[in-house]
Amino acid sequence: MLKPSIPKGTRDFSADEMLKREFIFDTIKSVFKLYGYQPIETPALENLSTLLGKYGEEGDRLIFRILNSGDFLTSATDEDLQKRETSKLSSLICEKGLRYDLTVPFARYVVQHRDEIVFPFKRYQVQPVWRADRPQKGRYREFFQCDVDVIGSDSLLNEIEMIQVIDDIFSRLNINVQVKINNRKILAGVAEYAGAPDRFTDITIALDKYEKLGWEKVKEELVNKGVSNQVIKEFGNIILVINRNNKDKIEFLKSILLDSEIGRKGVQEIESLMNYLEPLHLKSQVIFDLTLARGLNYYTGAIIEVKSADVNIGSICGGGRYDDLTGVFGLEGVSGVGVSFGADRIFDVMKQLDLFESIASVSAEVLVLNFGDAETKYAFRILGLLRKLGVKSELYPDPVKLKKQMSYADSGKIPYIIIAGAEEIKNNELTLKIMSTGEQKKILMKDLKSFVLSEIKSAD
Amino acid sequence: MLKPSIPKGTRDFSADEMLKREFIFDTIKSVFKLYGYQPIETPALENLSTLLGKYGEEGDRLIFRILNSGDFLTSATDEDLQKRETSKLSSLICEKGLRYDLTVPFARYVVQHRDEIVFPFKRYQVQPVWRADRPQKGRYREFFQCDVDVIGSDSLLNEIEMIQVIDDIFSRLNINVQVKINNRKILAGVAEYAGAPDRFTDITIALDKYEKLGWEKVKEELVNKGVSNQVIKEFGNIILVINRNNKDKIEFLKSILLDSEIGRKGVQEIESLMNYLEPLHLKSQVIFDLTLARGLNYYTGAIIEVKSADVNIGSICGGGRYDDLTGVFGLEGVSGVGVSFGADRIFDVMKQLDLFESIASVSAEVLVLNFGDAETKYAFRILGLLRKLGVKSELYPDPVKLKKQMSYADSGKIPYIIIAGAEEIKNNELTLKIMSTGEQKKILMKDLKSFVLSEIKSAD
Repeated sequence: MLKPSIPKGTRDFSADEMLKREFIFDTIKSVFKLYGYQPIETPALENLSTLLGKYGEEGDRLIFRILNSGDFLTSATDEDLQKRETSKLSSLICEKGLRYDLTVPFARYVVQHRDEIVFPFKRYQVQPVWRADRPQKGRYREFFQCDVDVIGSDSLLNEIEMIQVIDDIFSRLNINVQVKINNRKILAGVAEYAGAPDRFTDITIALDKYEKLGWEKVKEELVNKGVSNQVIKEFGNIILVINRNNKDKIEFLKSILLDSEIGRKGVQEIESLMNYLEPLHLKSQVIFDLTLARGLNYYTGAIIEVKSADVNIGSICGGGRYDDLTGVFGLEGVSGVGVSFGADRIFDVMKQLDLFESIASVSAEVLVLNFGDAETKYAFRILGLLRKLGVKSELYPDPVKLKKQMSYADSGKIPYIIIAGAEEIKNNELTLKIMSTGEQKKILMKDLKSFVLSEIKSAD
Repeated sequence: MLKPSIPKGTRDFSADEMLKREFIFDTIKSVFKLYGYQPIETPALENLSTLLGKYGEEGDRLIFRILNSGDFLTSATDEDLQKRETSKLSSLICEKGLRYDLTVPFARYVVQHRDEIVFPFKRYQVQPVWRADRPQKGRYREFFQCDVDVIGSDSLLNEIEMIQVIDDIFSRLNINVQVKINNRKILAGVAEYAGAPDRFTDITIALDKYEKLGWEKVKEELVNKGVSNQVIKEFGNIILVINRNNKDKIEFLKSILLDSEIGRKGVQEIESLMNYLEPLHLKSQVIFDLTLARGLNYYTGAIIEVKSADVNIGSICGGGRYDDLTGVFGLEGVSGVGVSFGADRIFDVMKQLDLFESIASVSAEVLVLNFGDAETKYAFRILGLLRKLGVKSELYPDPVKLKKQMSYADSGKIPYIIIAGAEEIKNNELTLKIMSTGEQKKILMKDLKSFVLSEIKSAD
């Protein structure tokens, strides 16, 4: 007999988990809407021509490919098969792949629908993505991203709005966060200042690792990459200020980046951002973090990363400004900014901090006990009334022992039980049992509505 | 340059479409919850061993397969490759496939989690499924199903509840429907009565086609399948009553199925169902339709199919009773009943009947115009207040010509515009423009909250 299982790195979600996840998704979506963002969705399947070459070599390997339907070998010659070059062969037998993130499909969407879209285009998208990564704790092969972007405007007000959205969402979820910001232009300026503008990528990657590994290790890595001692020395000076306050860092950078046009622009953007944010009195701490680099190459301005202040789990939200996301699909010079919320890690943080306690159960609020055929029509009348009032309620379907029915209510955490047997029917009443206290009350049918409105609905 | 496109049979959903789809999904889910059903989700990727062999040969061919990661040819010998037997080869190079429906994953879920589940288990599941079908109007390769099932109870009350759920959902969506019901046991009885119990499948399939093709064509098909003339004649008698009312049909069947135990059981179930439904005064017409067969082999009792009374688009919901869905995964004898709502066809019906008219826009309710840097902080104050009151609102991000900003509000159907320039800031007020009438009002900042509560929020 087949022992049922699911592919590694994927998950089933029980009702209890679903409820908690829905709370997260609903909170995120409601804030997106509050700031004027609109939902779109794209298909799980994209053409491989859309996906490949957008995520680097490693990314290409992690894309799940869909075998062509029917005779999938049509385009493969005998020679192709004999050679067993899997990477060539896979592109002959697969045309489609599973969405790897929401950013590339969004760029594709914007270009494909450019004539229907009014810019600036403010959209959000909450959908699963798939990656053939090695599964490990907190890393799944199917997981959910919640992306919000505004595209077609280069105003810095968009960056501010993103930070407001982040602050608003995590406040509602009761998660204390640190919002780290930096600017790719500053990183470019710093590389210029250090006399190594061509080593920009190596240097940003090394800086990105500073928090985790410390300066000694990072220095070692720069040496290994052939970065000159002089450059490394200049970096040492910068490292000295990275734990100072935001103002000090800005002043220091102003002093060293005088000769770098791009660097000065970056500092000016960060300073302006900080000035706008100050009077908004956000709940979250916003930190200008010079070591923040973020891997993705398409960022060109602000970069943002959010971490839980209480749980050590890595980034739970991140993003930034990009100036040419849609260029690869033929639409040049459209600037945008966006961030992505990682629903799965947010779930883990909330679980660890016991933040789900207050979420109401999805189960029915009322279980009507089943006494058999003769009492069923009366039970239906009660249920009809309850549901009309919006009370989630159900009838136990089988007339089994009351003990079994009660234990069903117990395990489903159903708070109220209604007993309506021959005696109650005769008196046109019902017995209501409150599970938490064990208390029982007789209620006349004609009083049920007012009872529900005052007792049950108010307890929601 | 790459011209962006998506795989055929898949779709992008714009904000406007998303809003309408969310209305459908939210309505369906809220009714499911109201009747005590709980959400679960299963992964898009399932092991092929779970999926294959469950949907017939045709179904197996329509399952999208995922190419194994890394060196996918490891298990394929040179001989396998030379032979080009695609069906054998595909199982050597693919272990996973995309979900084809929600029923088989549900059965797998129930068996895999049997120790955590309390029966009767009432669950719903709203997720996309994928089929490598030839795309055509109204048939997609990625589409959404909304399934609701109760498993672990053989009470007929579950069938009644399913019909109540159907009636409640379509009432809320304002779609007039016909709910057709039949019972596989009656079909078995009819086959026995006609003296051809072994031809049950041929006969039910032929009956299923009666409505579309008429008796002459169906007769022809039965003849072609080698069904005897005597049997066909008996069928002719039954066909004569199929347009009579429910009571007449039941009486007729009672008279001819006296000697068929299974047939009598089926008629008794239908009669009991009708008796329960009568006092519930459903809005939908419930028709006992002897020709209803539904293709899927796992149904063993009631079968249900729902059609729009106004739009000819085929079935928009269907399901039935099954006695052994989980047997194939090792859990025998668990009876259940469930139906599936086809969200895409429901969308098409509502569109055709103009039922989306009353749905509010997702766009922001208020656009604050951008007059430049000096006015921005004031604008942020206004936005902070609006959002605190739950008003979806946004600031135009760039200080461009007002005409362009106004046309953005226009095309996004944003109903209110707020003008807060130097003049307004001096007087601590703002100008509100109502887009539908063109009317403008000055409002003091201190009066904004009460204005919003009385004018804007009440207009929602």
